[in-house]
Amino acid sequence: MNKLKGAAIIGQSGGPTSVINASAAGVFIEALQQENITRVYGACHGIKGILNEEFYDINEEDMKELELLKTTPSSSIGSVRYKMKNLADDDSEYKRLLEVFKKYNIRYFFYNGGNDSMDTCNKVSKFFKDSGYECFCMGVPKTIDNDLAVTDHCPGYASAAKYVATSFMELKCDATVYDTPMVSIVEVMGRNAGWLTAAASLACYKGYGPDLIYLPEIPFDLDKFYADVEKKFKENNGKVIIAVSEGVKTKDGKYVPELVSDIAVDAFGHKQMGGTASVLADLLKNKLNVKVRPIEFSLLQRCAQHLASKVDVEEAFQAGREAVKAACEGVTDYMIGFKRTKRCGRYKCEYIRVPLEEVANAEKKVPLEWITPDGTGLTQDYIDYALPLIQGDCKAPLEDGLPRFAKLKKVFVKKL
Amino acid sequence: MNKLKGAAIIGQSGGPTSVINASAAGVFIEALQQENITRVYGACHGIKGILNEEFYDINEEDMKELELLKTTPSSSIGSVRYKMKNLADDDSEYKRLLEVFKKYNIRYFFYNGGNDSMDTCNKVSKFFKDSGYECFCMGVPKTIDNDLAVTDHCPGYASAAKYVATSFMELKCDATVYDTPMVSIVEVMGRNAGWLTAAASLACYKGYGPDLIYLPEIPFDLDKFYADVEKKFKENNGKVIIAVSEGVKTKDGKYVPELVSDIAVDAFGHKQMGGTASVLADLLKNKLNVKVRPIEFSLLQRCAQHLASKVDVEEAFQAGREAVKAACEGVTDYMIGFKRTKRCGRYKCEYIRVPLEEVANAEKKVPLEWITPDGTGLTQDYIDYALPLIQGDCKAPLEDGLPRFAKLKKVFVKKL
Repeated sequence: MNKLKGAAIIGQSGGPTSVINASAAGVFIEALQQENITRVYGACHGIKGILNEEFYDINEEDMKELELLKTTPSSSIGSVRYKMKNLADDDSEYKRLLEVFKKYNIRYFFYNGGNDSMDTCNKVSKFFKDSGYECFCMGVPKTIDNDLAVTDHCPGYASAAKYVATSFMELKCDATVYDTPMVSIVEVMGRNAGWLTAAASLACYKGYGPDLIYLPEIPFDLDKFYADVEKKFKENNGKVIIAVSEGVKTKDGKYVPELVSDIAVDAFGHKQMGGTASVLADLLKNKLNVKVRPIEFSLLQRCAQHLASKVDVEEAFQAGREAVKAACEGVTDYMIGFKRTKRCGRYKCEYIRVPLEEVANAEKKVPLEWITPDGTGLTQDYIDYALPLIQGDCKAPLEDGLPRFAKLKKVFVKKL
Repeated sequence: MNKLKGAAIIGQSGGPTSVINASAAGVFIEALQQENITRVYGACHGIKGILNEEFYDINEEDMKELELLKTTPSSSIGSVRYKMKNLADDDSEYKRLLEVFKKYNIRYFFYNGGNDSMDTCNKVSKFFKDSGYECFCMGVPKTIDNDLAVTDHCPGYASAAKYVATSFMELKCDATVYDTPMVSIVEVMGRNAGWLTAAASLACYKGYGPDLIYLPEIPFDLDKFYADVEKKFKENNGKVIIAVSEGVKTKDGKYVPELVSDIAVDAFGHKQMGGTASVLADLLKNKLNVKVRPIEFSLLQRCAQHLASKVDVEEAFQAGREAVKAACEGVTDYMIGFKRTKRCGRYKCEYIRVPLEEVANAEKKVPLEWITPDGTGLTQDYIDYALPLIQGDCKAPLEDGLPRFAKLKKVFVKKL
């Protein structure tokens, strides 16, 4: 057992999810109980908060409110999209981090995010090691995209998937209510991996799904798309519902909005998504001369805590706790991952430790063999994979008929 | 007590809601128990289904599935947007209806919809009376717009309001997660009445609401809008969330999308809405040079049964039952309405009977005195009005972690 005493800090990075606060709660609550950990901090807006010496003193919070974080969407301490400079090009940020860690005697570092964040955590950890500063760095996974390598799935995915599946079931009831023709195109988040869009097939499994599902794993062909829609239009008496990933691209690597104009890039050099459904709707309207309604789940798909999966909330929380336990055992440079096992034929999940290197910047896509040969649906393999993850409800307690989210005091740590 | 024996039929009309099936369930279940009613039919796509002699035989359905209609969104028998011709201009459709009613000995007619539908119900009833055909015609209210006259509120509104309020609370958590500036504009349904957009203020009441709320009751002024946003932008460190009704219009009567282009009209001559947030986002981006994200709740706000209010579901169901009871008592040409009373200081609702004439084509707007003087918020009067309506949850039972909706057999009545 590791005996190093010091403070712990958690930072959160990337797009929020319905359960990223649950992971923070796991880290906070476990860290507050660990003897090695002298003080627990929450970085205000991830790595940027550490660079700016802006963090919250979690020891000042009420346990009741920390427990409520489990059912509070998004990140209460704030997230960030910030790319650290390359160490070889400029080590000033890394030196600054080290300075801050030393000043507050931070010996336990938890970073909660997707593959970019695991890369950041890995780089920081390596710099500390090379500088001879002992600090235990652990990644806690988070992404609605479900695209992290090695782990069976990621916290945040199941709740977003449950939202997508439930919403498609409801939309199907709504969008087929008239006897007049109408095509609905629903855009789902997912840049390169179609996991979240695939969740639309869970609605199909229940008999209320979209007629066509397009994932970025399969090159998008506009002419085939037109033909697919025309076929369903005839079969379904003019009522067609389509699920499309925002990230579908042609075999030349062009995103749909790029077919009509240029698009912007973010701090990581990723192209800014959005507008896929809207562009496809305009193209379809012109081509088939029918009424087409584009719908974007937009931010709601990642923050609709009221549809959170109980399995997801519990696993997200536990992942945070497991990360703290590992660090306190002296483990560093690992991310907590999930391994699917079965007990009495039922889904069970084991927490595993995955080297950060193996997840940093890697990307796991939907297996091609889980996509139907026509490229517009998912096989039973996907259903079997996803169904166990979306089980159970775990919404915030109601107060006045509306959710009661955690109210943190957010006491800033006094700058030294 | 009226002794006329005959069949009953219900038709549904206009945009669906989360609880319109609950009203159908109320009519079906009550009608199946009434001695006067010999057979219960559900019109396939409202008045059009009656004209085409296409209706379902509800006596063939399982009671368990009819009960599940209470928690199944949208209209399972199908709705319609269809404007009957003016009687004075052309009575052929009215004659055809009479023919169908006579053929199937339909003596009880229930029409479930908003003010256009109450107008249809009223016209049909008058034609039958003038033709000497005895038939009891009752309206059952339905609209997320909450704009029906005389009644305190309408089934469908509370569940949509609960969706809007809950989603704003969640969006607030999500859209303020970064430390970078970002303006979000969320478009809410509502053509002339701002009731549903007003529900965003329930989120404000809980501390997670939008910063600015624009209703169609107040003329929309683009320059004031820019100034409002700039002020909040400075106050809130660059993070602003705005709720805007799709129906806001300038003092010259122009809808926002009309400020940049022409828009289409539907069968009732109403202008086709949508695109308000998107147009405002583009204008703001240009004006203030900031990142602006338009979000549309789109169809989800009216079909998100998973956030249905228990009060709403129960009242919608009961309204259907009360309509049947009234008709069987010999009442005709009325709509079931709601009167708010109090019992021991708590909200209670009484079912009242409102002459169809008084609701047909009338429109009830948000009282101007409930809108704050700056025109961007709601007073406590609105909160006190709306909070009792959104209490309690009433979602569909889960099966595989997803909603189990009613599965009707939908046996068509054999054409005579």
